[in-house]
Amino acid sequence: MNTPRPAVAVLVEDGFEDQQLSGILEGLAIAPVDVVTIAPFAARIYTGRHGVSTVTSELTPGTARGRAFAAIVIPGGYAPDRIRMRHGMVDMVRDAVDAGCPVAAIGHGVQVLISAAVIRGRTMTSWPSIAVDVKNAGGLYVDRPVVEDGGLITARKADDVALFVAAILRAIGSP
Amino acid sequence: MNTPRPAVAVLVEDGFEDQQLSGILEGLAIAPVDVVTIAPFAARIYTGRHGVSTVTSELTPGTARGRAFAAIVIPGGYAPDRIRMRHGMVDMVRDAVDAGCPVAAIGHGVQVLISAAVIRGRTMTSWPSIAVDVKNAGGLYVDRPVVEDGGLITARKADDVALFVAAILRAIGSP
Repeated sequence: MNTPRPAVAVLVEDGFEDQQLSGILEGLAIAPVDVVTIAPFAARIYTGRHGVSTVTSELTPGTARGRAFAAIVIPGGYAPDRIRMRHGMVDMVRDAVDAGCPVAAIGHGVQVLISAAVIRGRTMTSWPSIAVDVKNAGGLYVDRPVVEDGGLITARKADDVALFVAAILRAIGSP
Repeated sequence: MNTPRPAVAVLVEDGFEDQQLSGILEGLAIAPVDVVTIAPFAARIYTGRHGVSTVTSELTPGTARGRAFAAIVIPGGYAPDRIRMRHGMVDMVRDAVDAGCPVAAIGHGVQVLISAAVIRGRTMTSWPSIAVDVKNAGGLYVDRPVVEDGGLITARKADDVALFVAAILRAIGSP
């Protein structure tokens, strides 16, 4: 009998950081997990910040509701600035944190954690421009490649993606 | 004898919101003021977020030091995310606020005010995605086209530029 593979949700929107998203998707693709892309609209093509790479969304937060995800991943770039204005996307992140599901954000992805109001007292990192926003939201900012605190996994930039994906897979118990 | 025209500093970086910057420059061009563009590097061409329009910087914060500006203007877009990582740019804004010089920010330009730590207790507006960052920094966020509180003038988006420029000119006593 096969056990189902754990599903990892990746939140997407226009303006995602191309290298971060491709690195995350490639890193997860070689692991024994399923990857589901979630966006404000399903079956829509979203474009990266450099206008070159694209990704097609599979589910909305509404259609994903009730489905169990092993982890939620929030890539950076300009996409988080759009995602944080979508209540459904932000609520999904808050619900996941409240339920103890690992939530991983890299670069500007941490802006979504700020909007979800889930970082007070948590040690974390981010792209440096928003370190002040992390601190103002009650987060304990440190400049390290990857930081894990409880279920929150954070990283700074594209250079950190390999360690970031490794931390996500470790958090969900994937070999 | 001619009295010198007041000088208005406009902070620029790559990724500025094209419509906002062009609207600001056009609005100021027909007023009896001089406009000076300030950036981390002087005499460099900076490109807007849509990759089309450009602006050439005139001074750095260092070379501008000691020069009296009637107001400082911070256009939005992705440029403020870069500007807020440059201490010289952020210090210039903080020094201006401390000196009682009007400082005007539109859209994401308000991120620079957050980094300068000058918004606690101030009523203001911004692009809505960063309203939570404004509140976490102690600002009193309201959703209005243009808000003036003391020397801080803030606006939300490109649609507000005409009112924003009018408020800047009023603040510096320009006819």
